[in-house]
Amino acid sequence: MADAKDSLVQDEDEVTPWTVQSVSQKGVDYNKLIDKFGSLKITEDLIKRIERVTGKKPHRFLTREIFFSHRELGQVLDMYEKKQPFYLYTGRGPSSEAMHLGHLIPFIFTKWLQDTFDVPLVIQMTDDEKFLWRDLELEEAHRLAHENAKDIIACGFDLDKTFIFSDLEYIGGSIEFYKNICRVEKLVTVNQAKGIFGFTDSDCIGQISFPAIQAAPSFSSSFPQIFNGRSDVPCLIPCAIDQDPYFRMTRDVAPRMKCHKPALVHSVFFPALKGAKGKMSASDPTSSIFLTDSDTEIAEKVKKYAFSGGRDTKEDQEKHGGDCSIDVSYQYLRFFLDDDAKLKAIEERYSRGQMMTGELKQELITVLQTLVAGHRGRRAQVSDAMVDYYMTPRKLKYNYTAPSKPLGTC
Amino acid sequence: MADAKDSLVQDEDEVTPWTVQSVSQKGVDYNKLIDKFGSLKITEDLIKRIERVTGKKPHRFLTREIFFSHRELGQVLDMYEKKQPFYLYTGRGPSSEAMHLGHLIPFIFTKWLQDTFDVPLVIQMTDDEKFLWRDLELEEAHRLAHENAKDIIACGFDLDKTFIFSDLEYIGGSIEFYKNICRVEKLVTVNQAKGIFGFTDSDCIGQISFPAIQAAPSFSSSFPQIFNGRSDVPCLIPCAIDQDPYFRMTRDVAPRMKCHKPALVHSVFFPALKGAKGKMSASDPTSSIFLTDSDTEIAEKVKKYAFSGGRDTKEDQEKHGGDCSIDVSYQYLRFFLDDDAKLKAIEERYSRGQMMTGELKQELITVLQTLVAGHRGRRAQVSDAMVDYYMTPRKLKYNYTAPSKPLGTC
Repeated sequence: MADAKDSLVQDEDEVTPWTVQSVSQKGVDYNKLIDKFGSLKITEDLIKRIERVTGKKPHRFLTREIFFSHRELGQVLDMYEKKQPFYLYTGRGPSSEAMHLGHLIPFIFTKWLQDTFDVPLVIQMTDDEKFLWRDLELEEAHRLAHENAKDIIACGFDLDKTFIFSDLEYIGGSIEFYKNICRVEKLVTVNQAKGIFGFTDSDCIGQISFPAIQAAPSFSSSFPQIFNGRSDVPCLIPCAIDQDPYFRMTRDVAPRMKCHKPALVHSVFFPALKGAKGKMSASDPTSSIFLTDSDTEIAEKVKKYAFSGGRDTKEDQEKHGGDCSIDVSYQYLRFFLDDDAKLKAIEERYSRGQMMTGELKQELITVLQTLVAGHRGRRAQVSDAMVDYYMTPRKLKYNYTAPSKPLGTC
Repeated sequence: MADAKDSLVQDEDEVTPWTVQSVSQKGVDYNKLIDKFGSLKITEDLIKRIERVTGKKPHRFLTREIFFSHRELGQVLDMYEKKQPFYLYTGRGPSSEAMHLGHLIPFIFTKWLQDTFDVPLVIQMTDDEKFLWRDLELEEAHRLAHENAKDIIACGFDLDKTFIFSDLEYIGGSIEFYKNICRVEKLVTVNQAKGIFGFTDSDCIGQISFPAIQAAPSFSSSFPQIFNGRSDVPCLIPCAIDQDPYFRMTRDVAPRMKCHKPALVHSVFFPALKGAKGKMSASDPTSSIFLTDSDTEIAEKVKKYAFSGGRDTKEDQEKHGGDCSIDVSYQYLRFFLDDDAKLKAIEERYSRGQMMTGELKQELITVLQTLVAGHRGRRAQVSDAMVDYYMTPRKLKYNYTAPSKPLGTC
């Protein structure tokens, strides 16, 4: 039983698909979260194995514990070694036009996975979900799915390996996808959905059944055009760890559908500009850096709003050093500065008081301006026709032998 | 508060989309049901108005109070008089290959409505629902939708005026239909669904959200190919009264979707062969007459199993007469013997003891053998290709001017 005192003090991080709230300026306690969710830490050994199996340098998101947790990633590596097929699935809820830096994290890593393992990728745009949860018209959610797809395409996904879909379009366009939604819906009770997601009777019936829609792309039979009707191609899902409840549920129902459980790799959350305890919100432009921000806006936002782990005075900073664990500029560099040696040098100099907050912020400004300018340039190249092509259900460059048993018995 | 005594005695009929159980051999007390559901009785005046407005003899199902209740049928007649368009929507849950006589009732009346008013008709086959509620594979439910469609087509619906659809196919084939499902799902809470349908937390999330799928065909924007994108064409739904909860819910959300509320005409239930207190079940072949029964089977079933309101001996029957109100053979004749004068003569002779049960049953056998033989013959003419054509989303013979406002703002 919980200690009475404990229950009076809100001393626990809250992590659900709709709320991420940490009690510490250092952000969520991820070790606690792994214990609570029952996933596994990505160990150094596992990272070494990825390097050995793929022959590629592990992405900085792995070595820096940004993708820090997993479920059955080892089995995916086993399959890769045996040259057995698998595919990647990730997604985005298109609730606003302005995507911010944090939204890029799963896509940057997913692109690296796609390049490294050379596998198909499906990207779900949950426009139906955003309509159900937000004060948003369906048509607007649908439009945002297409707008956001441009930002996703600008991450560099290979057209021949990538299918992006809006739920509204693909549910309304694929009988096999809808069949898998029905199969999941039949296997999850209202009770279970309440337990996993915290739904109440005041939530709408669309919300309570939505998890089946996010589960369905975990099964290759949802994409007969890609997998030639095969229902036995396993799936690896890169996502922020707040999405894990959806896939715990999916992994629970998969065996009863005679399907593979999806494997997962989980990322930490990207901290808000004003500090890890804060929230990033599209309605508060000072809470994050958007992919549409100009060089000037980036510089101003970092200078004005980036939460600093530095000391109040130059003297104190020189004497005691800054606290990288809560300094947002340093944390952002961990995400985006690829040069390990340079990052280490910055960390050491800042911690030892050899670097002032202004200089640290300037390092970040340069990195972000380069990153966002690159994104801006690539996004400008993405035409509506190109979006349509990525979003057309079609065969990708991979060939699969047709299944021996009929579809739907995955 | 309910009287304590009342709550101990099960003296109330139970009518939900999944259970119809009457406490009397005469069947459900429909006057009580109308009060409980809040619908209106179809009065003699309303029937006379239908005759006046259409210039056609009212169907026997109206004059014999088989379609006995309605919601806003008067408004539909107003529209018809003003030459404003409306359409018909009915449906079937395809849970078994063997449709029985009772399943024909809504379709016989719907065909009369279509012929009389010359309007488009959409028929929903809820294969997804049957999968969610029954121990049935999705593929089997989907196959049964096509099998049952043959029986429905055999009722004589005009190909140029009728669109039959399987939920699995049409949800997976129409973005506008799925959008309306989402719109309804957003407006109904779990609480409300529990209150209307009696769902509990042990039900699956597919069941609790299914009502939105049965609601969506009530809105013409679900069928842009038929209505040229018009979202303002009102709908009239002929159905058995157990389906009313779905449409009470639909009528509740319609104004918030800025859509017309669907109008309804409700039928009584078709009595089971062994009496109105019993149930018709596909797993008990003696509980009803199936459309696949041979002439011999029909004759044997009626002779052996049709619940009789007659007396135990010839003498008693001659002295006291039979009770038509509980006699299933007489009740079946009310449904299927079109000749009013002959029906009246039978009723009088039987009630007065001038007709024995054997003779009454023989009358019914002749009527049913003719009916089923006709159905059998028409069904044999229905090819798979014809089913495919009825089930292809397409324009019907009616022309609609395109809407001035964009789709989805119905």
